[in-house]
Amino acid sequence: MSLKQPGKGCVRCIKIEKPVLGNNTSDAQRLEQALKKELGKEGGSQGVKIPWYLLKTLPSFLRTWDYKARAVLFKDRQSWRLVYLVPPNLIEPDKIKSDPIKPGQIKPHPSQQVLGAAIDIGTTRIVIRLLDLESGRTLGEIGFDNPQKAIGPDVLARIHHSHKPGGLDQLQALVVDGVNANLARLCQENNCESKDIYLVTGAGNTAMTHLFLGIEAFEIIREPYIPCVNIPDTLKAKEVGLKIQTHGLLFLFPNIGSYFGGDLIAGILFADLDKKQTPCLMVDVGTNAEIVVGSQDWLIACAGAAGPALEGGVSKMGMTAGPGVIDRVIIDPLTRKVDVHTIEEKRPVGICGSGMIDLAAALFLSGMIDIRGKFSRSACKDRLVEADGVLSFVLVDKDDSGTGQDIALSQVELNSLTSSKAAMYTILEVIVKNTADLEFEELETFYVAGTFGSFINPDSAISIGMLPDIERSRFQVLGNSSLGGAALLLMDPSAFDRIMEIRQSITYIELNVNQEFMNMFSGAKFYPHTDRSRFPSVPIDLA
Amino acid sequence: MSLKQPGKGCVRCIKIEKPVLGNNTSDAQRLEQALKKELGKEGGSQGVKIPWYLLKTLPSFLRTWDYKARAVLFKDRQSWRLVYLVPPNLIEPDKIKSDPIKPGQIKPHPSQQVLGAAIDIGTTRIVIRLLDLESGRTLGEIGFDNPQKAIGPDVLARIHHSHKPGGLDQLQALVVDGVNANLARLCQENNCESKDIYLVTGAGNTAMTHLFLGIEAFEIIREPYIPCVNIPDTLKAKEVGLKIQTHGLLFLFPNIGSYFGGDLIAGILFADLDKKQTPCLMVDVGTNAEIVVGSQDWLIACAGAAGPALEGGVSKMGMTAGPGVIDRVIIDPLTRKVDVHTIEEKRPVGICGSGMIDLAAALFLSGMIDIRGKFSRSACKDRLVEADGVLSFVLVDKDDSGTGQDIALSQVELNSLTSSKAAMYTILEVIVKNTADLEFEELETFYVAGTFGSFINPDSAISIGMLPDIERSRFQVLGNSSLGGAALLLMDPSAFDRIMEIRQSITYIELNVNQEFMNMFSGAKFYPHTDRSRFPSVPIDLA
Repeated sequence: MSLKQPGKGCVRCIKIEKPVLGNNTSDAQRLEQALKKELGKEGGSQGVKIPWYLLKTLPSFLRTWDYKARAVLFKDRQSWRLVYLVPPNLIEPDKIKSDPIKPGQIKPHPSQQVLGAAIDIGTTRIVIRLLDLESGRTLGEIGFDNPQKAIGPDVLARIHHSHKPGGLDQLQALVVDGVNANLARLCQENNCESKDIYLVTGAGNTAMTHLFLGIEAFEIIREPYIPCVNIPDTLKAKEVGLKIQTHGLLFLFPNIGSYFGGDLIAGILFADLDKKQTPCLMVDVGTNAEIVVGSQDWLIACAGAAGPALEGGVSKMGMTAGPGVIDRVIIDPLTRKVDVHTIEEKRPVGICGSGMIDLAAALFLSGMIDIRGKFSRSACKDRLVEADGVLSFVLVDKDDSGTGQDIALSQVELNSLTSSKAAMYTILEVIVKNTADLEFEELETFYVAGTFGSFINPDSAISIGMLPDIERSRFQVLGNSSLGGAALLLMDPSAFDRIMEIRQSITYIELNVNQEFMNMFSGAKFYPHTDRSRFPSVPIDLA
Repeated sequence: MSLKQPGKGCVRCIKIEKPVLGNNTSDAQRLEQALKKELGKEGGSQGVKIPWYLLKTLPSFLRTWDYKARAVLFKDRQSWRLVYLVPPNLIEPDKIKSDPIKPGQIKPHPSQQVLGAAIDIGTTRIVIRLLDLESGRTLGEIGFDNPQKAIGPDVLARIHHSHKPGGLDQLQALVVDGVNANLARLCQENNCESKDIYLVTGAGNTAMTHLFLGIEAFEIIREPYIPCVNIPDTLKAKEVGLKIQTHGLLFLFPNIGSYFGGDLIAGILFADLDKKQTPCLMVDVGTNAEIVVGSQDWLIACAGAAGPALEGGVSKMGMTAGPGVIDRVIIDPLTRKVDVHTIEEKRPVGICGSGMIDLAAALFLSGMIDIRGKFSRSACKDRLVEADGVLSFVLVDKDDSGTGQDIALSQVELNSLTSSKAAMYTILEVIVKNTADLEFEELETFYVAGTFGSFINPDSAISIGMLPDIERSRFQVLGNSSLGGAALLLMDPSAFDRIMEIRQSITYIELNVNQEFMNMFSGAKFYPHTDRSRFPSVPIDLA
């Protein structure tokens, strides 16, 4: 999560040796030498190639700039690439007015900005962060629904559409146009120009990455489930239609397979999992639950749907956070008085995933649901209503809600939550205990990534047996780690090699939903678990 | 001058591993593996990147082609580049009619051609050679005047023009349009399509290379005479406007400085100078006289105009070869009967450079010019005419010529030839004796490159003291070595590394026109030389 100090990033101030008689070295090759010197050990054995479009006017630029320049660089899979040269910082912007220009002196100008954009290409939502590549400062962020939603809500529907004539181009255009429009807005809001964006990095799941690049994605969902590409080459952003600097580059994070995307690699990078001395765990609760455990020596990952046990998925709980959405629920265990907190403290309109976890934990800790996850008629009393033979717990009465209707949790929804929390715990158990041969207590840090994860109250998640009962201080919220990883690469070129090493060092395991898994899953469907000793800190005494 | 056997060139037949369950390796990465395997040691440590435009449809192509393909590759400065994939050779063209296609079988098609073009970008003339990259076969060649002639006849005039607003673009457009038009014609003549051209290599002097790429060239002629670029990066041919395969590549040979261009590097490559065990010499008589001497261990070069001694230059003799141009002259030393041979045996219209050397040699050997290069009135008799105080030797009487005028050589022209031959010999002496510390006899082979050089009769050139008096069998005519080197690179990817090594290993010497040079030059202005012992084989006994 560390950003390198400015000056060692993608923008370097360089000084080119002036030409003299008796040395035939060209401008371009002297520029190469200056870059090689600037990069030093970082540069490796390969030189930095000077692209043709920079050559065209290089002689006059160098002479106008007195052989100084800022070089925008990108470290590629095989070598460093010079993306562009921008004028040196001739003068600080605030000095322009005060210092009169002498005749013959180069006219000072406010420094041209060198910007980069990081994109989290989510199936549901896309977030763009705009950064100043020199200072490392985040200038702004913008989020919007993935416009491909118009075609289909999920990966499967979109890939099927991509297989129809013109479908792939349509899907690519939707997402690229959406990014362009929002990037333009983001720039406008921050008084920047998109032509000053030289680098774009993006991370998404394997399908979203393919669709963003307009690459055939159909084999991702057809046996043997092979993506077209694991490591997309760095390419000119304009080739896919991105409207940034004409020669700006685009790099999308590589994947490991159809079910382990670049978003997770970005997350691992952002969490520094590959640098840890002792094992840590990262769980990303996005469209799928994805888990990585490991350290600098090894990384084990599992991701994707795991058969019928995960039907409904952990992410399907509740609605997306927004004003009036209940994000916290407190029930006094003695009085069973219910208190809800809503986002922006508006009148309640619904409940989001983290609110549901809070609610289930509160209900359980106050004895209103039993260890099997069933509502207790005696404890819930008149808060329980029945319709079509299904019980529902009324959290907010229609008189108090913002919708004019009761806000309630049905037994069917609660069952789904129970399945989800059990699935999550089981997968964690499989990967940590059965695969990595560790105890939960051995994990130094337990990173919770993803927007959903950001709002989860660990106490509540532990109370219902969704997360293991470890020291609360070990939980750490990462936020949008996919975006964080993409932004990190913009600021720290050495991250490129780490990305490649992370790809190499990950062992990806397929969840095997066999009898043993189903047995573990059955135990985890209890609150907090059939094996009570696993949750010593959960304050309930079951008589 | 050796072309590698087909199959080890730029086109490789590859077989990609088929995907199976339990292996997440993508199509692109399996393709990378197949390429790595095919290249073996040649491939180096770097992988071959799969460009985005190939990814887009890679999954369906691989499945349609049953995981076989022909890969068009180019070895770049830093790694191999995959230019394109073309369908495998599914069936021989002549088999298509005879074998009926079974249902479900892939439809056979005649193999798609994979072509390349090599260009010699001469200041005066441009020559294009079209090759089949798989068989190595030359399909055809076309030559045309450099269209930049319309702007100016020489490098200096054109560079000055390039410095005017719009001048550089105009010059680039002229040459690129000319190449496109002639490439189209060459393809048509050979029943090919320019869209099947995947690689273009070109070699020219430093100025022509800059103008071809549209790169600022003005500093080449301004102190300290620095080109913009020594090693132009490989680029998409369409970026400079070449009309070949959309993703086809263009590589122009690197230079060493403003006066030592890629055409010479191509020549050294073509002559295999960098592989010689014993020293050889190559002289290229083009717009300038350029000389390289050396072997696998070292290379010394000198090139360019060498001050006043070379005014008029060796290449300014006579007219360009063409029908009716006198290319050979024989004079019986006893009867002094003159015999001329013309190209295509048409009526004589003029004399070309090689014809002039023949003429001068014949005149000298028959005593019609003396050792100072002056016409002998007594020997020439009535073949000598005088006009405006200048003597001229009538070679062909107006009654026999194709122009209705005498074809004659004036004393002024002969003086110019004398200066030129003396300059050539002196430069050879400086580089071989004074610089490389060798005797002419130690040179294993004496390569004569360039169109002009192709027609020189070594006996004649030795007789007048232009070339040193070594065994005739050691002279070898290279022809258009610039074109030959460019074509070699198309067929043999390993030539790329040789090009870079040649660049590195050359010591370029500036001709220092000092008193010593002028003394040597004065001696060389005699026929064959003041030091008669240097030309023992020249059959003349000077009383």
